[in-house]
Amino acid sequence: WIWRHTVARLGEDWVFLALLGIIMALLSFIMDKGISICTNARIWLYRDLTSHPFVQYISWVSLPVCLILFSAGFVHLIAPQSIGSGIPEMKTILRGVQLKEYLTFKTLVAKVIGLTATLGSGMPLGKEGPFVHIASIVAQLLSKLVTSFQGIYENESRNSEMLAAACAVGVGACFAAPVGGVLFSIEVTTTYFAVRNYWRGFFAAVCGATVFRLLAVWFQNADTVRALFLTNFTTEFPFDPQELFVFALIGLVCGLGGASYVWVHRRYVLFMRSNKRMNKFLQKNRFLYPGFLALLVSSISFPLGTGQFLGGELSTHEQVTQLFSNFTWSRDDLTVEQAAVVTHWMTSYTSVFGNLVIYTLFTFIFSIVASTIPVPSGMFIPVFKIGAGFGRLVGEFMAVTFPHGVRYGGRLSPIMPGGYAVVGAAAFSGSVTHTVSVAVIIFEMTGQITHVVPVMIAVLVANAVAALLQPSIYDSIILIKK
Amino acid sequence: WIWRHTVARLGEDWVFLALLGIIMALLSFIMDKGISICTNARIWLYRDLTSHPFVQYISWVSLPVCLILFSAGFVHLIAPQSIGSGIPEMKTILRGVQLKEYLTFKTLVAKVIGLTATLGSGMPLGKEGPFVHIASIVAQLLSKLVTSFQGIYENESRNSEMLAAACAVGVGACFAAPVGGVLFSIEVTTTYFAVRNYWRGFFAAVCGATVFRLLAVWFQNADTVRALFLTNFTTEFPFDPQELFVFALIGLVCGLGGASYVWVHRRYVLFMRSNKRMNKFLQKNRFLYPGFLALLVSSISFPLGTGQFLGGELSTHEQVTQLFSNFTWSRDDLTVEQAAVVTHWMTSYTSVFGNLVIYTLFTFIFSIVASTIPVPSGMFIPVFKIGAGFGRLVGEFMAVTFPHGVRYGGRLSPIMPGGYAVVGAAAFSGSVTHTVSVAVIIFEMTGQITHVVPVMIAVLVANAVAALLQPSIYDSIILIKK
Repeated sequence: WIWRHTVARLGEDWVFLALLGIIMALLSFIMDKGISICTNARIWLYRDLTSHPFVQYISWVSLPVCLILFSAGFVHLIAPQSIGSGIPEMKTILRGVQLKEYLTFKTLVAKVIGLTATLGSGMPLGKEGPFVHIASIVAQLLSKLVTSFQGIYENESRNSEMLAAACAVGVGACFAAPVGGVLFSIEVTTTYFAVRNYWRGFFAAVCGATVFRLLAVWFQNADTVRALFLTNFTTEFPFDPQELFVFALIGLVCGLGGASYVWVHRRYVLFMRSNKRMNKFLQKNRFLYPGFLALLVSSISFPLGTGQFLGGELSTHEQVTQLFSNFTWSRDDLTVEQAAVVTHWMTSYTSVFGNLVIYTLFTFIFSIVASTIPVPSGMFIPVFKIGAGFGRLVGEFMAVTFPHGVRYGGRLSPIMPGGYAVVGAAAFSGSVTHTVSVAVIIFEMTGQITHVVPVMIAVLVANAVAALLQPSIYDSIILIKK
Repeated sequence: WIWRHTVARLGEDWVFLALLGIIMALLSFIMDKGISICTNARIWLYRDLTSHPFVQYISWVSLPVCLILFSAGFVHLIAPQSIGSGIPEMKTILRGVQLKEYLTFKTLVAKVIGLTATLGSGMPLGKEGPFVHIASIVAQLLSKLVTSFQGIYENESRNSEMLAAACAVGVGACFAAPVGGVLFSIEVTTTYFAVRNYWRGFFAAVCGATVFRLLAVWFQNADTVRALFLTNFTTEFPFDPQELFVFALIGLVCGLGGASYVWVHRRYVLFMRSNKRMNKFLQKNRFLYPGFLALLVSSISFPLGTGQFLGGELSTHEQVTQLFSNFTWSRDDLTVEQAAVVTHWMTSYTSVFGNLVIYTLFTFIFSIVASTIPVPSGMFIPVFKIGAGFGRLVGEFMAVTFPHGVRYGGRLSPIMPGGYAVVGAAAFSGSVTHTVSVAVIIFEMTGQITHVVPVMIAVLVANAVAALLQPSIYDSIILIKK
C-alpha cells in the first residue's frame, strides 16, 4: 500500500512539473512573438520612411515612449508588485518571508503584459528576472488549483520546493538553457540546497525547453531544435594556452567592472530616492520620468544620429549574435556578408574599437538608468551585452596585435575575437550576479563548449574580485528595499 | 583588522585549492602515461609477433595477468583499504562516519600504483571512483601539512568542505570535465549542499583541468587544450524533433538496464560471499581468483579469437571515440578512414549489429565480474561503454530503417548514429549512478552541446526508471558492505 501511494504521489509531482514547464514555454513563446513584433515594427518603419530624417526620428522614438508609458501605467493600475526584476523578491520568499500579493493572478497579468511592452520598446533591459517571477506565480497558481482538487499539496516545504523548481524553469525558458537555468536558480535563490530536489528543476526545465524549441520548429519554420546564439568556433584549435592569461585578465577587469556596476546602480537608486523634492514632483507626474527616459534612450540610439556608434539599428539578439561572430572585424579581406555585419559597428568617424567602447559604456550607463523605470525588467541581458562588448574589444585588440596568433612555433592559428566576446559576457554577468553557473548558461546559449576552460577561469576570477568588493546585484537590491 | 584577516584566510583557501587541483592534475597525467605505456606495449607485442597465433595469445594474455596479480598483491600488502571504487566510502565519510586508515599516505600509494596497473591490464574497469578517493587523500594530507604550520585549518566543518571539493577535483581531473565533475560529486556525495561552497569545487577543478590540459600540450605535443572524446556532429541539424521519442525510449531501456546492472552486481557479490567453502579456498589462494579472471577476460578479448566480435584490439579511449564517430557504419559508401574504423566492429561472420550486441553484453557481464577483483577500480567508464554500445546499436538500426532521415517534408538530413551513442552513454551511466549531471560531463567530454535536449530527456527518463527499481550502484555497495 505504501509503495503504491508513493508512486502515485511521485506521478502527480511529475505531472505538475511537466505542466509548469509546458505553460512557461507557451508563455515565453507568445511573449517572444509579441516582443519581436514590436521591435520589427519599429525597424520596418525606420527603414521605410526614408523620405525625411525627422519623420524617421519621430517614428523611431514614438513607439518606445508609448510602450514604456503604457507598461508603466498598466503595471501601476493592475499590480505595482510586478515592477522590477523578481529575483530578489523570490530570494526573500524562499527564505520564508511572506510578501503580500506577490504571487497572485493579477501580478501575473501585469508582469506578462508589462514585460512584453517594455522589451518591445528596445530599452537596454532583460527578461530573465521577470521570467523567474512569472514562473513562480504560475507554479503557485497551479499548486492552488491542485490543492482545490485534493489536499495533498497543502504542505509548506513542498510549496517551497515547487517554487525553487519554478525559478529554474523561469531561467531555463528564458535562455533555452535547461541545465544552466537550474544551476543559476540554485545559486541565486538558495543557501542550502537539498540534492534530492535536483531532478525537479531539471525535469521541469527540460519539459519547458523541449516544448519551447518544438514550438519554434512548428510555428517559425526553424529548421530544428537549436541554440539561441549559435556560434561557430572551430573545435580544432579554439585557443592557445598562452591566451589563458589574457582570459584571466578579462576576468579581473570584468570583476572590477561588475562590482562598480553594482555600486553605481545602488548609488543611483539611493540618490534618486534621497532627492525629496524631485521625488514628490515625479510622484505627482507619474509618467514624466518613464517617458523622459524612454525618449532619451531611444533618441541616443537613433541610427542616423548617435545610434550609429552603438549598433542602435540592431535588436539585442542581433547585437549578441554579431558580437559572438567567428571572424575578425578589423581585417581587410572580409566577405560581403561579413562586411555587412561590420558596417553596423563602424562609421566614417570611428573604427570598430571606438564603436565597441561607446557601445559598452552606453549599455553600462543606460541599463542602470533604465532599470529605475517602474516597469517589469531584468538586469541579466544588459549585463551580458556589456561583457560581450568588452570581450569583443579585447579580442579585436588581440587580433590586431597578434595578426598571426600568439604561438611562437609550429602551426599558426589566428585569434578568435568571438571567443573573447563569449568569455567577457560570461565573466561580466557572472561578476554582477555572483554566479558561476553563467558559464553553463553560455555554453547552452551558444551551443558550443569549446571555450570551457577560458570561460571558467574568467568567471571564477571575476567572481572572486566582485565578491570581495560588492554584494551581488540581487542582494544589493534587497539591501536597498529594506 | 577583521577585513585583512578575512582576506588572508580566503587567500589561503585559494592556495590550498589550487595546490590540490595542480597535484591531482600531475598525478592524473603521470598515471595516464603509465596506463597508456602498459596498453600500448600489449598491442605492440600483439601486432609484432605475427609469426604464430599462439605466441601472440601468450603475449596478449600474460601482461594483464601479471599486472592484475601485481596490483592485487601490492594492494593487499600495503593498504587493503584501497580496494574498490572509493565513492561509497567517501559518501559515508562525508556523512560523518570515520573509516579507519582510509585517508592515509599508505593508501594513497597503494591506490595510485594499484590503479595504474589495473587499468594498464585492459580489464573493463574505470578510474573515476578511485580518482575521487585519491583526491580526497591528497586533500587530507595537504590539510594536515597546513595544520602543522598553523592552527587555522583544525576545523571539522572546514575539513569536510575540503573533502567535498576534493571529490569534485577527482571527477574533474578524471574526465577533464570541471563543471560536470563538480555537479557529479555534489549529486553523489552529499544530500544537503551549502551553495556558498560551490566555488571551492569549481576553483579546484578548473585549476586541475587547466594544468592537466597544459601538461598535455607541453609533453604530448597535443595541438591545444581540447576535449577528451571530441565529437564532430553538425550543429546545423543535429536531430529531428521526432527523434526525441526514440531518445526517450533509449532512456527507458537504459533505465531498466541500469537497474538490472545494479541488481546483478549485488546478487553476484552476495552469491560469491555466501559460498563459504569457495570463499575459504580463495582466501588461502589469494591470487587464484584475480589471476583466473584476468586470464578469462583477456582470453575472451583476444583479437584473433572471440575478441574480434567485441573490438578487443582497441583501447577504451579508441572504443568510445569510434562509437561516438559521426558517420553511419552500416552504409556502403565509406571512405578509407571510415572503413578502417568499421573493420574493428565487423567480422566475416557478423555485421556491425551483431558485434555491437556482443560488445554491449560482454562489457555488461565482465565489468560486473571484474569489479569483484580485489584491486582499485571504478565502475563509471564500463557503464559508460555499455550505454555507448547500446546507443550506437539503436542509432545504426535507425539509420538502416530510415536511410533518408525521419522527416516527412522539407530538407532531408540523415540520422546521426553517433548522437545516439552519446545519448545512450549518458542515459546508462546516469541510471546506474542515479545522477543527472552525467549530461554535463558528457558535454564536456565530447566538447559538443548540440544534443542537450535529447541527452537531458534520456537521462531524466533513465533516472526516473532506475530510481523506482533499485538504489544507485554506490548506495548498493554501501548496503552490501554494511
